[in-house]
Amino acid sequence: MKRWLSSACMLAAGAASWWACSPPEAKPVRPVKVSVGEIDPAEWGKAWPLHYVSWALTREPSPAGSSRYKRGFDARKTYDKLSEYPYLALLFDGWGFGVEYNEPRGHSWMLEEQVQVVDKSRMKAGGVCLSCKTPYASRLRKELGGDYYRKPFEEVHGRIPEKHRLLGAACSDCHEHTAAGLRIDRDFTLGAALRSIGKDPSKLHPVELRSLVCAQCHVTYCIPKDKEKKSVGLFFPWQGAKDGRIAVETVIAHARKNHEWTQSVTGFPLGFIRHPEYELFSNDSPHWKAGAACADCHMPYQRAGSYKISDHRIMSPLKNGLRGCVQCHPETPEWLRERVYATQDRTVSLLNRAGYATAVAAKLFELANRERSRDKTRTGVPDAASVGGASRIDQALYAGAKGFYEEAFYRLVFVGAENSVGFHNPAEALRVLGDAVAYAGKAEALLRQALAQAGVKVPAKVDLELPKHLDGRGERKLMFDPAVEIKDPFGTQAAF
Amino acid sequence: MKRWLSSACMLAAGAASWWACSPPEAKPVRPVKVSVGEIDPAEWGKAWPLHYVSWALTREPSPAGSSRYKRGFDARKTYDKLSEYPYLALLFDGWGFGVEYNEPRGHSWMLEEQVQVVDKSRMKAGGVCLSCKTPYASRLRKELGGDYYRKPFEEVHGRIPEKHRLLGAACSDCHEHTAAGLRIDRDFTLGAALRSIGKDPSKLHPVELRSLVCAQCHVTYCIPKDKEKKSVGLFFPWQGAKDGRIAVETVIAHARKNHEWTQSVTGFPLGFIRHPEYELFSNDSPHWKAGAACADCHMPYQRAGSYKISDHRIMSPLKNGLRGCVQCHPETPEWLRERVYATQDRTVSLLNRAGYATAVAAKLFELANRERSRDKTRTGVPDAASVGGASRIDQALYAGAKGFYEEAFYRLVFVGAENSVGFHNPAEALRVLGDAVAYAGKAEALLRQALAQAGVKVPAKVDLELPKHLDGRGERKLMFDPAVEIKDPFGTQAAF
Repeated sequence: MKRWLSSACMLAAGAASWWACSPPEAKPVRPVKVSVGEIDPAEWGKAWPLHYVSWALTREPSPAGSSRYKRGFDARKTYDKLSEYPYLALLFDGWGFGVEYNEPRGHSWMLEEQVQVVDKSRMKAGGVCLSCKTPYASRLRKELGGDYYRKPFEEVHGRIPEKHRLLGAACSDCHEHTAAGLRIDRDFTLGAALRSIGKDPSKLHPVELRSLVCAQCHVTYCIPKDKEKKSVGLFFPWQGAKDGRIAVETVIAHARKNHEWTQSVTGFPLGFIRHPEYELFSNDSPHWKAGAACADCHMPYQRAGSYKISDHRIMSPLKNGLRGCVQCHPETPEWLRERVYATQDRTVSLLNRAGYATAVAAKLFELANRERSRDKTRTGVPDAASVGGASRIDQALYAGAKGFYEEAFYRLVFVGAENSVGFHNPAEALRVLGDAVAYAGKAEALLRQALAQAGVKVPAKVDLELPKHLDGRGERKLMFDPAVEIKDPFGTQAAF
Repeated sequence: MKRWLSSACMLAAGAASWWACSPPEAKPVRPVKVSVGEIDPAEWGKAWPLHYVSWALTREPSPAGSSRYKRGFDARKTYDKLSEYPYLALLFDGWGFGVEYNEPRGHSWMLEEQVQVVDKSRMKAGGVCLSCKTPYASRLRKELGGDYYRKPFEEVHGRIPEKHRLLGAACSDCHEHTAAGLRIDRDFTLGAALRSIGKDPSKLHPVELRSLVCAQCHVTYCIPKDKEKKSVGLFFPWQGAKDGRIAVETVIAHARKNHEWTQSVTGFPLGFIRHPEYELFSNDSPHWKAGAACADCHMPYQRAGSYKISDHRIMSPLKNGLRGCVQCHPETPEWLRERVYATQDRTVSLLNRAGYATAVAAKLFELANRERSRDKTRTGVPDAASVGGASRIDQALYAGAKGFYEEAFYRLVFVGAENSVGFHNPAEALRVLGDAVAYAGKAEALLRQALAQAGVKVPAKVDLELPKHLDGRGERKLMFDPAVEIKDPFGTQAAF
């Protein structure tokens, strides 16, 4: 008995000493604190060296050929989106997007591409263009007030500290300086947008923030103009929508009222839609409904030494071995990749349908406008079309076609500018494109009738004269690159 | 030691006796053997009573309201598909489908609906109509040879043993008589179709059979006609396709060459497409690629007494609590149901777009044809349109529009006839519908131009005169039922 007791005591003592000696859980050492308002990523990097290194990798290209449609940073080649989708050159002719519109290369390059690479016409809107491109945007907006939007781009850009004049998305855009929790930096854009749909930006759940920090920039926006066409603000066209259902119809209703440029081919003042990732993704998409946030797929966890960090080299999951996907999906990366392509192939097919159909309608407007202006010369009436009967182009048909055309145009741009080629919300993207095709077809139909009634015979196949729009673009005389054109993957569109 | 040995022996003996006494695994008792060639389900039921009971339940309606769009067997009401989608009444006017076209009620009713309920015009094609409706089809085909197809429906139907003249899909359609393994009964249709795409029907994997037994009927088909418009055969339009990629384009190429009826509104001889479930599902769909077979989702395992059987009360998973879905998906049935609707809502939206766009084009053909026939009367030329210049309707525009129109029509029918409202292959269904919209828009555009050139002014909004087609249909004078109409779930189509 004595011996048993002695053994039991030794065991207990041993266990106790094992617990006592077991080292505490490893935690990152943070010898440096980040100051309030610090923007310099190098300073943040002292506290968060692993995340900093991962973030800095957005400077590096991804392996060529790893994504079928989003090749923006394949082996340092710049992909010209207007050559990929030639109808866009026709439709965007009239402002910077129709001159140079490249597939983006990632966070590290976003401001640099704007400042050094892109045709100057892309910055015509002014300081407002910096709102997503520099982590200093909120500070500049505060300092300059309303002038921030309208002042020349170069002037506002010059106020950024010299060493950060090429700095893209940085730590402070998404993170609190203290605990590296998430925060919304752009209250003047996203904060206002959230309030407009009844959501308090100060009461966001951490999981919501894992998408909303991205939604500071991966959204569409409108730039209101004054009478002199100077930018006077910036807002997300969400008013009237609700959280989780920011429909394309709502976005378009605002875009149609906020003209930012004039389309050369048609002469129409138009609004615009940019990269509506958050809008498309959050509108009833499968992954959204499954509770996935942007960061879940685009910032998968990875091992870094003895730590586990979320990958700050943000990119398409197709480009990093689908690491984000396999966290939840048991299938192989190859299998998953084919599923992504199954969706993207179909989106591209319908995008091209919608694009060419809209471009055909645009060319018919060009023709109709020429007739209207001839009639004006002939009759001497300042705007022949506006005084019923003076123009041979039927006014009601023309106006009807214009309405349909704009609906088609914005839908096409909505999906075309969205970064996932439909993957963020397959059925919705295809619905939007199907509607675009419907509107474009209706516009074409009414215009063909109006032109025929005016005695103008339109050939069955309309010549889009694409080289006019694709070649010799801007100061740099950019040319069409047929090697990068993305054609219908189903090869069924020859008849058009 | 002795005591220890004795204890060990007792333990071993106990264990041995436990194994010995443990009853053998329960296996179904099969006191009855099914004879070779037996068709009577009651005989099969003696050997497989649990499956028989489950099969017999296809006689019973499913709970009303459990599927948003497929309400075919909701609480014994018959749903008129032409009232659900009114444009179909216009497009199908000219034969039985335009008279009475109901949502089906399930396997037990399939022949009975045909014989007792449906307007007689639906059986005009002859004995061929029985090919999917009775388990006696292969036998009748063998007995009658080529006459099977062309003989009057009533005559061929009269050769079925009297007690089975209302019997729908039965055990022998899918099962081997011995072991209840799966078999293809319809070698003259599916067997031939498989051979046409290079697949040997005698070498099918059991998993393939779990879809292919369904593909005996859940496919589209063509009925070739002789000069007297009598049916002379039956084939699935798969020639030129490959396994896993029976594309809508292949199906349409065949349908366009196999005219079965004449569309009243346009006067065009046309082919047709029926319920292409297998074609749509097997063409790169998510569930197909995940290895799921029809039976996995539509015949989930269920407990029956102490056995586990696959549910032979085959129906939409939406109608039986999504039991098929939750076998693989960990989400709640409610969550899964919303995902199905997210796809189906979008499919219905684009289906209606395509449907109304195609109907508009059809009405413009009606107008163009009226002009052509007036010109014929005026000029005395037998077919004014065929002698260039004699008709005021431009021939090339008319011919171009006709080609586009037919492409739109078949795509619309492909998705409209498919039983899943897009769910079997969401992206593909939406691509097909988007293409339908594109073709219909192009047809409308060319026709508006041709009509305007001929001096015919078409209003911007074409009156489809739907009551003409919807009311007073057939011998039974069927009427439009506005209560069941399925409108665009997004409510954005008022402008058309």
